[in-house]
Amino acid sequence: MAMAGAAFVAVPAAGQKADDADTNAIIDQGFNHSQVMRIAQEMTDGLGPRLTNSPAMRRAEQWAIDRFAGWGLANVRREGFEFGRGWEILSVDVRMTAPRPLALTAIPIAWTPSTGGAITAPIVVAPMSKEEHFAEWKGKLAGKIVLVTLPGTGDEPEKAPFRRLGGEDFEKLDAYRQPKYDPDAINKRLERVSFAEKLDAFLKAEGAVAWVRQSYRDGKLVHGEGYNYRVGHTLSLPGVELAAEDYRRLARLAKSGPAPQLSIDSNVRFDDSDTKAYNIIADIPGSDPKAGYVMAGAHFDSWVAGDGATDNAAGSAVVMEAARILKTLGVRPKRTIRFVLWTGEEQGLLGSLAYVDKHLATRPGPTEGEDGNALYYGWPNRYPVTPRPGYGDLKAYFNMDNGSGKLRGVYAEGNVAAVPLLQAWLAPFASMGAGKVVAAPTGGTDHVYMQSVGVPGFQFIQDPLDYGSRTHHSSADTFDHLKADDLRQASVVMAGMLLASANSDKTLPRFPVPSQPAPYDPFQYKDPDQ
Amino acid sequence: MAMAGAAFVAVPAAGQKADDADTNAIIDQGFNHSQVMRIAQEMTDGLGPRLTNSPAMRRAEQWAIDRFAGWGLANVRREGFEFGRGWEILSVDVRMTAPRPLALTAIPIAWTPSTGGAITAPIVVAPMSKEEHFAEWKGKLAGKIVLVTLPGTGDEPEKAPFRRLGGEDFEKLDAYRQPKYDPDAINKRLERVSFAEKLDAFLKAEGAVAWVRQSYRDGKLVHGEGYNYRVGHTLSLPGVELAAEDYRRLARLAKSGPAPQLSIDSNVRFDDSDTKAYNIIADIPGSDPKAGYVMAGAHFDSWVAGDGATDNAAGSAVVMEAARILKTLGVRPKRTIRFVLWTGEEQGLLGSLAYVDKHLATRPGPTEGEDGNALYYGWPNRYPVTPRPGYGDLKAYFNMDNGSGKLRGVYAEGNVAAVPLLQAWLAPFASMGAGKVVAAPTGGTDHVYMQSVGVPGFQFIQDPLDYGSRTHHSSADTFDHLKADDLRQASVVMAGMLLASANSDKTLPRFPVPSQPAPYDPFQYKDPDQ
Repeated sequence: MAMAGAAFVAVPAAGQKADDADTNAIIDQGFNHSQVMRIAQEMTDGLGPRLTNSPAMRRAEQWAIDRFAGWGLANVRREGFEFGRGWEILSVDVRMTAPRPLALTAIPIAWTPSTGGAITAPIVVAPMSKEEHFAEWKGKLAGKIVLVTLPGTGDEPEKAPFRRLGGEDFEKLDAYRQPKYDPDAINKRLERVSFAEKLDAFLKAEGAVAWVRQSYRDGKLVHGEGYNYRVGHTLSLPGVELAAEDYRRLARLAKSGPAPQLSIDSNVRFDDSDTKAYNIIADIPGSDPKAGYVMAGAHFDSWVAGDGATDNAAGSAVVMEAARILKTLGVRPKRTIRFVLWTGEEQGLLGSLAYVDKHLATRPGPTEGEDGNALYYGWPNRYPVTPRPGYGDLKAYFNMDNGSGKLRGVYAEGNVAAVPLLQAWLAPFASMGAGKVVAAPTGGTDHVYMQSVGVPGFQFIQDPLDYGSRTHHSSADTFDHLKADDLRQASVVMAGMLLASANSDKTLPRFPVPSQPAPYDPFQYKDPDQ
Repeated sequence: MAMAGAAFVAVPAAGQKADDADTNAIIDQGFNHSQVMRIAQEMTDGLGPRLTNSPAMRRAEQWAIDRFAGWGLANVRREGFEFGRGWEILSVDVRMTAPRPLALTAIPIAWTPSTGGAITAPIVVAPMSKEEHFAEWKGKLAGKIVLVTLPGTGDEPEKAPFRRLGGEDFEKLDAYRQPKYDPDAINKRLERVSFAEKLDAFLKAEGAVAWVRQSYRDGKLVHGEGYNYRVGHTLSLPGVELAAEDYRRLARLAKSGPAPQLSIDSNVRFDDSDTKAYNIIADIPGSDPKAGYVMAGAHFDSWVAGDGATDNAAGSAVVMEAARILKTLGVRPKRTIRFVLWTGEEQGLLGSLAYVDKHLATRPGPTEGEDGNALYYGWPNRYPVTPRPGYGDLKAYFNMDNGSGKLRGVYAEGNVAAVPLLQAWLAPFASMGAGKVVAAPTGGTDHVYMQSVGVPGFQFIQDPLDYGSRTHHSSADTFDHLKADDLRQASVVMAGMLLASANSDKTLPRFPVPSQPAPYDPFQYKDPDQ
């Protein structure tokens, strides 16, 4: 609707949508000529898992650049930021050698060192999750493989693992939640990093030879997340995660005695040739250089137990397919449309944070030139927020990172003034199940830091499928768990939303540049025990 | 109630129950002094999986004999029957070597041979499930590793994996089903055995080097069942089962090309030192030698992917614990109580069939001296049934083989005349959730052949838990998935039912000795396409 304004043209009340013919062309390209499952298959089966700054991620970055460039996108580029060490698994073999021989299901914990061949030692079950737990184990760990998780009992999953959203779900999500400011809040990831360092130092000082933790999912799935990736800060002792069934068997045998013997051969490799991590960016340039840009993003990095399919080849493939669709149609939007594949999301949304810090707004404290982890530390609680020159240019950001389920709409994330415009943009896709706009906020992925500086960043609502129950971070996160119908629909909706927001006369309402919030409950005393 | 008959004693209408004091002593022993989880832990964590006639099963048999004898049971013995080859897994390593290196989750298929070190070859996806599929692959398999399963897509489990029974479930189960005789029915296990032999011959003739099948459960679980265990009839080519995610990745990569390379190192060992398999039997002798006996049983053998915990250490531990409880109480029942741990159940209920054939009734055709598989062939359809001298002595048989869920009652299995007596025996345990008697028949375990000759054999109703969804035959079948509360309850109910039936004045009604049934639908024409 580039001619909007003529009195006899019915302009939608809420703002300008993409031309209807464009919408139908997107639908034709996205359903009849879809490439999204081919893209996702190359990304998962072909490239495999994509740990931030790993050699496999280097290959994946080049592949993504080649694809974007091959489709003719403009300004295809990497944007680096200081991250930490490269690391990859070459092989792993963990087995119980006594009281009976048994191969166990295991994965090295990310960024822990090699065992340097097989090491065999008796185990000791020494559950430690706080520093005050160390005292009990002092003098008891020398020469041992230490099982550090408190072994529980088998789970009893009484909910269906695979689920789609229904009516009541949307009602629950569409409830405004007041923003809450907790100045003492510190991030769990940082606690994890810091405790892992202390535990490592304790285990090393005690003469332990390796440590083992239990998978947090039953059913022989493993994950292997680790957060101690910074140069000079990786752990000194090898660590592996065991399947819950295997871990608890060891723990029971240790209880009934004598303690089982374990053999661990964790063969991993560090690569410090480049300690930067890279976001991948590609554009469809807009016709109006003053109109700013809209952006779609998904994190491209993954953990390594599976192929990083639902987390997050799904979102990455949809972002790439939306780029392909729009480029194939030859659209010439008013605003630039930017496509970003983030990295470092799994280590703390580091790629999108680096983008915000570089292009949108700064906060005081450690910023450029420092490693991602330092940049991350307490970031959303630091004031003032100082907008960069490009702050106002980003008119809308759409993020996809909730697995393979089809898009059901958008989380307005408290930006209730944006609801009418978001609804208008989604309207053509309502019959595909994507028409809902709900007030609830979501966290834990790459729109969060944009929101934290006042930029309208949104996450899509998605059918949960088996993302939370089974595939998220796990060894079962493979292409099989991607759903073609869902990802085709998501690509169409993503392309449609981008084009609508890129051409819209109206732009999304923004919040004021955030300043230090008032304490949420000024009359409450702080419990000294917390 | 050994003094029943005095006019002032209220005798239950349906028959004689165990003395109330005995019931309370069982409850005390079974809940306050339970050993069932210790027994189950030794059986699973300690002994590990117990494949019929494997070296591990030999050790397990001795352990069970020692336990029964240690508790003071009488006539503790093995009873052997001709079975087939011993076999065990020493190690397995399956990895994709191209297009990228990747360790896969795999298990050797039972009774297939070793690869004799690692063999590496390109794969070909050649789905074959019937002989007529062979023609398409003729000349195309030489030097290949052949993937024989049709790869599907990921599952979408929309039911809760862990479940307990509720009101409606019991209503559905309590519906009489008319017996149905299909003279053409042949057993699926036998088709499987025969097709595996034909496929093996075809693959060998074509020069294939190994075959691979897909796990039937998603989520990285494997099973490894195989049925070609007879002396002189094991397969010639090594076969492995891959996790569904791993199998389908290979299949997709083969489609996108070039075909992946696979390396398989399946290190297994045959042991033909004893080709018999053994049931384990132990008695608490009755006071009246003419009163016959009652019997509890569970199969002790398992597959080898897990530790055979829910299938069927659960039932075996409950049978053993019931023996321990009753022996500890020093009961002196009227009838002998017999406890049996069956073997060869997983290969076709072979242990219980051998018991029936030896002690209860014969059918024409291959019987003694032949291997179990031949005995099995078409057995329930052969007439006449000829009772042995001991036929009438077995008054009741109770089987447990539906996982770790607590007992909810008994399947009357069409023996509706037995309902009142079963209900009376269960009455003390109704408040423990075990009071239901339902009409429905069940199949697939060790009471089936007793029923097929007219002996009253019953299976308990159990809460399903995650038996069907996750643990049955799988690599997740470990002790973690056993539920202590449930197995304690089951042990108490099992002991109570045995004592009640051993002391009862009334015995369970029987059917006539089965004779050739009439065709179920005499006016129906046979579809030539079926």
